[in-house]
Formats: sequence, structure tokens, C-alpha cells
Amino acid sequence: MVIVMKADATDKQISEMLDFLTSLELKVHISRGEERTVIGIIGDKKKLKDKPLELMEGVEKVVPIVESYKMVSRTFKPESTIINVDGVEIGGKDIIIMAGPCAVESREQLFESAEAVKKAGARFLRGGAFKPRTSPYSFQGLEEEGLKMLREARELTGLKIVTEVMDIHSIDLVSEYADVLQIGARNMQNFSLLKEIGKIQKPVLLKRGIAATIDEWLNAAEYILSEGNKNVIFCERGIRTFETYTRNTLDLSAVPIIKKLSHLPIIVDPSHGTGKSELVAPMSKAAIAAGADGLMIEVHPDPKNALSDGVQSLTPEAFKMLTDEIKAISRIIGRDFD
Amino acid sequence: MVIVMKADATDKQISEMLDFLTSLELKVHISRGEERTVIGIIGDKKKLKDKPLELMEGVEKVVPIVESYKMVSRTFKPESTIINVDGVEIGGKDIIIMAGPCAVESREQLFESAEAVKKAGARFLRGGAFKPRTSPYSFQGLEEEGLKMLREARELTGLKIVTEVMDIHSIDLVSEYADVLQIGARNMQNFSLLKEIGKIQKPVLLKRGIAATIDEWLNAAEYILSEGNKNVIFCERGIRTFETYTRNTLDLSAVPIIKKLSHLPIIVDPSHGTGKSELVAPMSKAAIAAGADGLMIEVHPDPKNALSDGVQSLTPEAFKMLTDEIKAISRIIGRDFD
Amino acid sequence: MVIVMKADATDKQISEMLDFLTSLELKVHISRGEERTVIGIIGDKKKLKDKPLELMEGVEKVVPIVESYKMVSRTFKPESTIINVDGVEIGGKDIIIMAGPCAVESREQLFESAEAVKKAGARFLRGGAFKPRTSPYSFQGLEEEGLKMLREARELTGLKIVTEVMDIHSIDLVSEYADVLQIGARNMQNFSLLKEIGKIQKPVLLKRGIAATIDEWLNAAEYILSEGNKNVIFCERGIRTFETYTRNTLDLSAVPIIKKLSHLPIIVDPSHGTGKSELVAPMSKAAIAAGADGLMIEVHPDPKNALSDGVQSLTPEAFKMLTDEIKAISRIIGRDFD
Amino acid sequence: MVIVMKADATDKQISEMLDFLTSLELKVHISRGEERTVIGIIGDKKKLKDKPLELMEGVEKVVPIVESYKMVSRTFKPESTIINVDGVEIGGKDIIIMAGPCAVESREQLFESAEAVKKAGARFLRGGAFKPRTSPYSFQGLEEEGLKMLREARELTGLKIVTEVMDIHSIDLVSEYADVLQIGARNMQNFSLLKEIGKIQKPVLLKRGIAATIDEWLNAAEYILSEGNKNVIFCERGIRTFETYTRNTLDLSAVPIIKKLSHLPIIVDPSHGTGKSELVAPMSKAAIAAGADGLMIEVHPDPKNALSDGVQSLTPEAFKMLTDEIKAISRIIGRDFD
Repeated sequence: MVIVMKADATDKQISEMLDFLTSLELKVHISRGEERTVIGIIGDKKKLKDKPLELMEGVEKVVPIVESYKMVSRTFKPESTIINVDGVEIGGKDIIIMAGPCAVESREQLFESAEAVKKAGARFLRGGAFKPRTSPYSFQGLEEEGLKMLREARELTGLKIVTEVMDIHSIDLVSEYADVLQIGARNMQNFSLLKEIGKIQKPVLLKRGIAATIDEWLNAAEYILSEGNKNVIFCERGIRTFETYTRNTLDLSAVPIIKKLSHLPIIVDPSHGTGKSELVAPMSKAAIAAGADGLMIEVHPDPKNALSDGVQSLTPEAFKMLTDEIKAISRIIGRDFD
Repeated sequence: MVIVMKADATDKQISEMLDFLTSLELKVHISRGEERTVIGIIGDKKKLKDKPLELMEGVEKVVPIVESYKMVSRTFKPESTIINVDGVEIGGKDIIIMAGPCAVESREQLFESAEAVKKAGARFLRGGAFKPRTSPYSFQGLEEEGLKMLREARELTGLKIVTEVMDIHSIDLVSEYADVLQIGARNMQNFSLLKEIGKIQKPVLLKRGIAATIDEWLNAAEYILSEGNKNVIFCERGIRTFETYTRNTLDLSAVPIIKKLSHLPIIVDPSHGTGKSELVAPMSKAAIAAGADGLMIEVHPDPKNALSDGVQSLTPEAFKMLTDEIKAISRIIGRDFD
Repeated sequence: MVIVMKADATDKQISEMLDFLTSLELKVHISRGEERTVIGIIGDKKKLKDKPLELMEGVEKVVPIVESYKMVSRTFKPESTIINVDGVEIGGKDIIIMAGPCAVESREQLFESAEAVKKAGARFLRGGAFKPRTSPYSFQGLEEEGLKMLREARELTGLKIVTEVMDIHSIDLVSEYADVLQIGARNMQNFSLLKEIGKIQKPVLLKRGIAATIDEWLNAAEYILSEGNKNVIFCERGIRTFETYTRNTLDLSAVPIIKKLSHLPIIVDPSHGTGKSELVAPMSKAAIAAGADGLMIEVHPDPKNALSDGVQSLTPEAFKMLTDEIKAISRIIGRDFD
Repeated sequence: MVIVMKADATDKQISEMLDFLTSLELKVHISRGEERTVIGIIGDKKKLKDKPLELMEGVEKVVPIVESYKMVSRTFKPESTIINVDGVEIGGKDIIIMAGPCAVESREQLFESAEAVKKAGARFLRGGAFKPRTSPYSFQGLEEEGLKMLREARELTGLKIVTEVMDIHSIDLVSEYADVLQIGARNMQNFSLLKEIGKIQKPVLLKRGIAATIDEWLNAAEYILSEGNKNVIFCERGIRTFETYTRNTLDLSAVPIIKKLSHLPIIVDPSHGTGKSELVAPMSKAAIAAGADGLMIEVHPDPKNALSDGVQSLTPEAFKMLTDEIKAISRIIGRDFD
């Protein structure tokens, strides 16, 4: 940590700051510049945790040096983490596709989706049984009934299941049916939920918060890892900006950034990230070209009659065409698909 | 709802749309323009809930007309709601100040803060016992021990208590100690929490989400009201923008907007809204001038040694000066204080 | 400037950095921490201007310490600047109101507006003769004809004139008619325009760019001052955020921030800042309470038939009511009005 | 255009609105719903240009139906435009790369860059002679001397030249030396500049404004086309968001959106779009996979000693590796390179 003193800081203020720091048994280095004095702090920064040094007299600003997350950091663990979900590896050489309807609506809709996405090369079936919706009057999901349908679809197709868990009450319930627990964008900083999920070993798909910085996202994952669950997969799903043409602005630069800062895998959800089905294919190809480990894509056998997010869903035919293109790009950039 | 057909929509596409709508027993009105055909829909819009009309052939866009929230709307209830918290009215003529430290740290710190803010005219003591923090390694609050201190401070001073509840598990616990339950910005769309809090009658302070639109905020309140709890107070606390000089951008226009769209009261938190103590006084005065029903302000007897958010806390002396100014402005604009 | 070396920077990399810095005749101070080595640089930082130190091997990041603007800074000139516009002082004790139609449309419309705003206490008449419009097919202003009408209105009422200059070609022309040259939000970083305006002595109203940071805004003013024109007035007019209910998000915290960082005056434009006439009065009062030196408000005798921005214009009656309220608040906070 | 009347609009208000519209000789269609009355307007919408219908009594909102731009629209011209720059086609099957240093610094630096980027497959040399800089004290470019060096580099290598024009004064000067005139992000809504450039036939590279919506960007191009110059190439270069890890957030979804809404070509600048050299390669590959017609990339023979933007520049070696990868992806998606 570096403390920059004000241009007009007095010698007394500077020596009081030094006294304070040494009273905490921290080592300091002082640089007296022409315009400012700068104090570098060495030692156990935990002693300064939550001390508002900015408020001490004569201080202009305090510059942190070390990031606040540890276990998710590539500095902490240089080699990439591969997460094994019952035999399917995420973060390895293979590009992994998770696909299916936004919400589980019926046995027929789900099974038809599942067969279609499997045929096109998906390894995971997605589908919400508990749905976070802006309005309390929108369809809230089939809940446990939906989970049971997901399990049936798993048995029929062999696809792994990824589905959202919305609160600490239902972690056990959802874990019974799902292979990967999804934490939605609105819950990315639901710290109670993160801590509880950190206590189990089920893989977690952690969506980026609607306006979360990369740093906050890494810290949200740190909540899970610090409790013991090391199986976190990031999922970029668009951030909120001023642009209204798209539902969100898909931030594909998050892919190489997460790859650089963390050892954990990252996939991309272009369906929520754009909100328009015609943008899903180009952004899926772009995500893979940028280095993503996989994709999460909404596919619905009959988008016009979908109960949720039909506007951004692909038909099974469009999805098949897309996975063929993904396959070709994957090989070009040294990845596999299937 | 209004459906705008594409410029090149065929007659067949238009008549299929009309057939679809009438099959749902909706009445339609057609306007055939020179460039576009526009279809207005009359009747029970619930029949169209989640039907992706945008996907039907020939459709250019779909324009919703009625807002999605109801019980929070001033159309639904034209007269302003006054929320009575054990004798203290929020949303009436009186400006209500909630003040205290960001986090409860110790009996001494809390009691000293409580005495100071009471003397300056605050009616509520704020203080976090459960703290949502970006990093899992930051101070997470004193939890139940903190709640007990808040109750003691209540007994000593007569101040009402407002404190955050972070998850559904602790609603009962926090309700035992608090007069008003605060839902933090990160939990504004924690729909499970909103629904559970809707089932009790304890007043709720609903902070605006970090990147929540006015519409999403009103809908979050609708989750609570629709479950039966009508005692919701909005709290503007700044939104996330590109500006980095302030911690958030305090959106004071939210005050007259909420007043126009909803009958519920709104207060402003300039401490989190700016993140800098020197901005708290000017923005507090501005909030009252804009029509806010109250303020939530961080006050700490010793900001330099605060365990959380010291940089944005006022000293008791600065707080007293501010409430004197607030008093004068309140009267000028036809409100009372004290 | 402080250079933070990477955790795994080698001794060779560190000594190369030190050699490079000393080769430029800069003095350095080194702090070798447990995790990182930090190098502070003392001396003439101009030698490092545009050297990408971040690229040198072993460097993690570079932290600038001194802000890039100088002449606009309150450190450079501690006492507040009062700008005298032909006898009317901006930045002194008096609150100054600039009001009038968005665009000059006709002699009648302009004179009626001018009489009305003068009666209500405005000291400046605003009105665009050159209009920056998103679409080339929208009304672009009456140009020189409009300027002539503004001059007539000045002669009739004694109001000072503020109007926009859109390019370097028309600086001389607009200067002939206007008392204050307005630089619009879209031109805040039109550096050629800023430099040319810096060469004359006419006072300048510098609107904040649509997505400009405080720092960029101060630097834009620095372009003008560094060329010799010290008569700059800042005008906060809302920034672009994700919120769509308002046209922009009026950032009132900019008022105390500019007051702290700069000696120059600042006024607020709540008409463009919100885009809705019903929000103009509350936000005007809030701006004054926050410490603004004045307001710029759109007033139109017949908003329904305005050629530009009618939706956000006040009627003369509403404007009169507002200035009465502004007067009362001004006195409470130690300012004058009239 | 569709006018939605308020729930409580009186019959008188509705009939006054109808009278007003018919007085303008517009045809109207009325839909009386259970909650709202909706009025569709047919006929020449120019009659309503700038009439603030929102202000008429009883009106809730006004919904425009037709976009404001025309000549840039794919509705207006369905087939894609290919822009021929002295033999090099942009927007055709070939992927076009523009590369070179941020700023022209010296003959050696420029020629070395030019040779390197040519060898790697670039068809255009980029390099700023006039530089828009946030601070007036930063390097502002070599101006005409820089332009002359660009012409020399053109003669030596055969590369076409793209360079920025910052104001109307220097259009003629820059046009003498450049094959494509670049309009920078800060000037995207410098309407005077757009209009003047519309009067010549030189191809224009129109960078997206720092916080410009897709709609504003298309309208900015419309300013140029409506004056007669049809040779506009869009360039996505990142937008301003809350994220601070990157310099901007590169919005790759703009690529398929522009392709859908307009017939004009679009290229991507990942150097400014991310601000970090390590992100340039993954985002370049992603841009091509998303359908971009080309790339603009900063390459510097010695990034560490660059006078501007060294942090985001590639070395010639890194650039060569990247173009090889781009070549492979281009073929996979049905494009050519070279």
C-alpha cells in the first residue's frame, strides 16, 4: 500500500502518520518528492484492514497494491483449473456447450429441447425451474416440478443439468437434481448464498452481476472458494450500459481478462448478453475466438410460444448450424469440440 | 399493447397476427399507415404474458403501454402513504433523519454515536450488524451481538433502529431487534428475500440497486407489497456510472420521480451515494430541496478509526451543523423538522 | 509517480528500471516490500510524459500522483474566481439565472420569453441560433438571423445573451452578438474549438460532455485557460447512464466537487439534465442547495408548439413560481438573488 | 407514430388531440382500450417534427415508429456497400487491416512500422498527425510534418493512409495526404465537421462516440451521406462503461447490429477498445468471428518508447502472429484475407 501525502502536508502530519504505522509494527519507506511525500507500507496489510488512512490529516490518497482476492487468482495458482462435472471437463481442451430453454415449461418442451441440443453437440441441458423475474406477476418457474423434469431429461439423454438456485433455502433441493448450480446475475453479491454454496462441493456457475466489475466478480468467487468449494465456473452474460438496442452489452474482453487474472474457467451466455436471437450466432463465434471455454445458449423448440425470453432463443435448426460453425472455429484456435 | 408491423409485412402475416390475437379473445384495432401497419390490443393483457410477439413473422416491434407494477403506483393509490414506525411518521410533513455508524463496532462507539445523532435531531439510529462486503476478508459485522447493542442504544435514547437483513434465514432474528428492516442495494433483486419480507408487517427500507432502473426498483417494492407488507420506504443511495471521482452517482432526480410514480415515501443516503464526507452536507441539503422525506447519514465519533466506510462518515460536530441547515431549508419548502 | 513492480519481478528488471529512470536524471526512492517492490519518482515528471513505463519488464502498474490540469485548479489559485459579464458577476454572492427557449424560433417567441424571464429575475437570456441535433433532418436553428434577434432582445430587456458556438468558423460571428459563448456537451472535447476560444477574452460556458468525467471536464477548461482566456463557467447538464426514465442523470455532486477542485464558477442546467419539465423545479432547488452559482433553465411561452425540447421547457408562470422559491433558498444558504 | 393517452384522459382531451392532428391533415386511427386510448398517426410525419405532443393534455407518451436515419439504412439500400479506396475494397469479401503507430513520431518510427505492418498483411497504414488529447500538455502530434511522413510511407510501401482530421479548417490539408479521413470518437457529434466532410468524396472512417448509442452513430453517418458523401466506414472502438479494468468496453455486438441496420461496412479497433496490448489479439479474432470487415490495430516498433498509447500497441512480431490467426479464422467464416 502506498500513501500519497498532500502537497501542503506538514512535517508534523507526516511524522504522525509514520508513528501510527510503526505503532502497528509495519515497516515504511518514505519518498520525499518535490511536490509530494509518498509513504510505502511493508508488512502485514491485515493490520490496516478497514483503517481509513485517507482521513488522517495531510493524506491525499491511498493506493492499494495487492488485489483483495487470493484463492481465485492465477498468482495463487498458476495452472488453469479443469472442473470435472461427472466426467465432463470444463476448462480443458474441449469447448463445452450448455443449451436449452430459458425456463422449464413442460415435459414435452423440455425433452424436445434436450434431444435437439444433444444432437447438435451440447453436453449440458440448461433450464430454469426457479426464475428471477423483474415483476412479481411474471411466470416464476415450475419449481420442484421443473427440477424433476430436468432429472428425467438427464436420464433420457445423458446431458448434465445446470439450473439456478435462488436462495439458501433451496440449495439442498436444487443440488439433488442439478450437476451444476447456477448463481444468477442478480445474486452475484448475495453473500449469504455464496457462503452457503461454498460449503458444498457441487460445481457452481457464477454469472457476472448486471453492473459488476471484474474485481467484484473475482471477489464473489473468492467468497465461494474461501469456504471450501473450488469448483467455480465464471459466466459472462452482459453488463448494463447506456446502450438500449441490446438487452445488455456483452463484454467479451472479460474472457481474456479472467483467463489472465484467474485459473478458473469462463463461459459466455450470448442469449442474455444480447437479448436478440439474431445476435446469438455472431457473438457465440466471437466468444470462442476470444478464448472462452464454452457457451450457454437458449434454445427453444417453439420460441414464439416460450413463457420466458422467447425473443432471444434459437430454434433447434439455428442452434445446429451454429454448433457446426463453432466446431470449425474451435479447431482453428487449438481447441476441440466433442 | 401496440404491435408495429414491418414495412414489408405481407397481408398474410398481418391477418395471421390478427387471427392469433382474436384466438386469445383479445380485441384489436388496426391502423394501416403509409409505411407501417400498427395493431392496438385491448382486453386482458395477461393472456399475452410472456408470448414473444416480436418473433411472429412480419413484426417489427412490440410496445408495452401499461407499467408492470400496480400496488406501488400512484395511479393505484393517489394519496401519499405515511408509514408509522412506532409513533414516528415517515412520508408526512416531518423530515426524518436516520444516522449512525456504518457498522456497529462496539458498545462505546454505538452509544456515543447514538447520543450525538439524537442530540442533533435524528429520529433513527442506523448501524450494520450484518455487513455485505465485496471481499470475504473484510469485516463482516458483529451479527447478533451487534443487534443486541442496537437494542440497548434504542432503550437508552429512544431512537428507532434501522438495520440490514441480508438473507431469509435472519429475517426473524433481525426483526426482533429492529424497527425498520433495511434491504441493501445488492439485494434489491433478491426476490426470495423480498417475498419473505412481504409476509411480515415490519417496515422496510428498500435501497435502490447499484444499477437498478426506476422501473426495476418500483417492481422490487411491488414484490413486497404484493405479498401483503405495505410499509415500504425507498432509499436512493447512488447508482453506478462511468464517473470514478465519487463512489456512486447520487441520482437526486429519483426523488421527484418516485414521488410522481408512487405513493410511498423516499429518503436519500448521501453517504453511500457519494462516498466522500465532504460531499455529504451539500448533497443532504440538495436532497431535501428536491423533496425527499428524509436522510440516512453515516456519523461516527471517530471516523479515522472506523472499521467500515470511515471515509464517508461525518463527525458528530459536522452532523449537528448539517441538521441545523436542513432545519432551515425544510421550513422554506413547507416541511417540518422536529 | 509511483511504479509498482510485479511480485515476480527479477532483480535485473528492477535495476534496469532504476537505470532507465536515473538516465533521465530523475531521483528515485525504492521500497522493497514482502510482496512487491515499489519505486517512487521525484523530479521533473515531464521527462516521463508519454513514456509507457507499464510496458517495461517486471512492471505491474504505474500510479500517477499529480492531476494533469493546473490553471483551473484551486491548488493553483485558492480564491474563487468571479467572472464579470459586462457588469453581471457569476461566481459571486448572487445566484444568476439564465433562461429562455431552447432554440430561437421567431422574434415574437423570443421577445415574449425574454420579457417573461426578465420579470422573474433572470439576468441572462439563453436561446440557440445554431442547434446541434442528433438527426440532420431536425431543425438546425435560425443561424445569423437568430443571433440578430438575440441582440434585439438584449437591447429591449438589458438581459445578457448566452448562446452556443458550434465550430471555429463561427466564433467571430457569434462573439459579435453574445455576451457568453456556450460550448455544448457534444463539443466539450472538440479541442480545436477549445483552443481557438482560448485565444479570445469572451466568457465561456463550458457544458459537461455527455459522458465526461470530472477530470476530463477540468482538462477541457484547461485547454481554454492555457491559451489565455480565464473566463470559464462550468455547466453541469446531466451525464449518460443506464437510466432511461430521464434524458440524462443530473449529477449534482459535480457542484461541490468542482467547487473543491477548481476556483471557477459552476451553474446547473436541469432542463437538459432531466429532459422533463416536471423535474426542473425540484432539481433547480436542489442545485442551489448544493452550492451552484446559478441555473440555466428552458422557458418557452408556448411549450407545446416549441420547435425543440418543448417537453422540458417551463411556462413563464411555472418559471416565476420557481424563481420565488429559489430566492428563499438562496437566502437560507447565505447567497443573494437580485 | 403512436400516441398513448393517460388512463384518466378526458373525452375532451382526446377529441382536442384528434382535432389538432386532423388540423395538420394527418389521418388518425383510434383504439379505445379498457385502460388507455391509443391514437395511431398516418401520413406525413414531417408535419409533426418537433411538435411536443407529450405536452398536450391527457398524453401519457408518444412512441416513434420509424427510425430517424434514412440513407444509411439497409431498408433504404438493401445490398451491402463496398467502398473502393484507390483499388482496395472495404466491405467486400476481403478482411482489411489498418495498422501502425498511434501517433506519427518520426520518419524512422513510421517507416519501420509501415514495413512491418505491410509484411504482415495490412493494407492501410494508420498514424495520427493531429492528436486529440485529454490534457493540453500532452503531445499534440507533428501536424503537417507528420502528414508528409505519411505520404512518404505511402510512396515507399504502397499502403493506403488513414489519419484523423480534427476540425473543418484542416479538412483540405489532411485530404491532400490521406486516402481515408478518420473522424475520432470525440468528434462523432461535431456536426459542423460531419457536414463539411459530407461535401467531399474522400472515404471517411467514422469512429463511434465514447458514449454514443447505435442510433446516434447511424445518425452521425447520415449527416455525412445526406450532404453527398456516401463513402462511410464505421469503426467500433469501445464505449464508456463503469468497468475500469479496460480503457473502454469493446462492444462487439455493434458489428452484427450495424450489419443488420445499415449497408455500410464496419471495422473494429481493439487497441483503443481495450487499452491493453494483451487483449488486442483475442478481441481481434473475436471481431472477425463476429463479422467485422476489418481491423484497426496499433503497432509500434518500440512500444516502450512510444509518445502515445504505447501500453496498447503490439510489437511487429506480435502483430504478424495475429494476422496469421486472423487469416485462418477469415477463411473458416467465408471471408478472404489477402
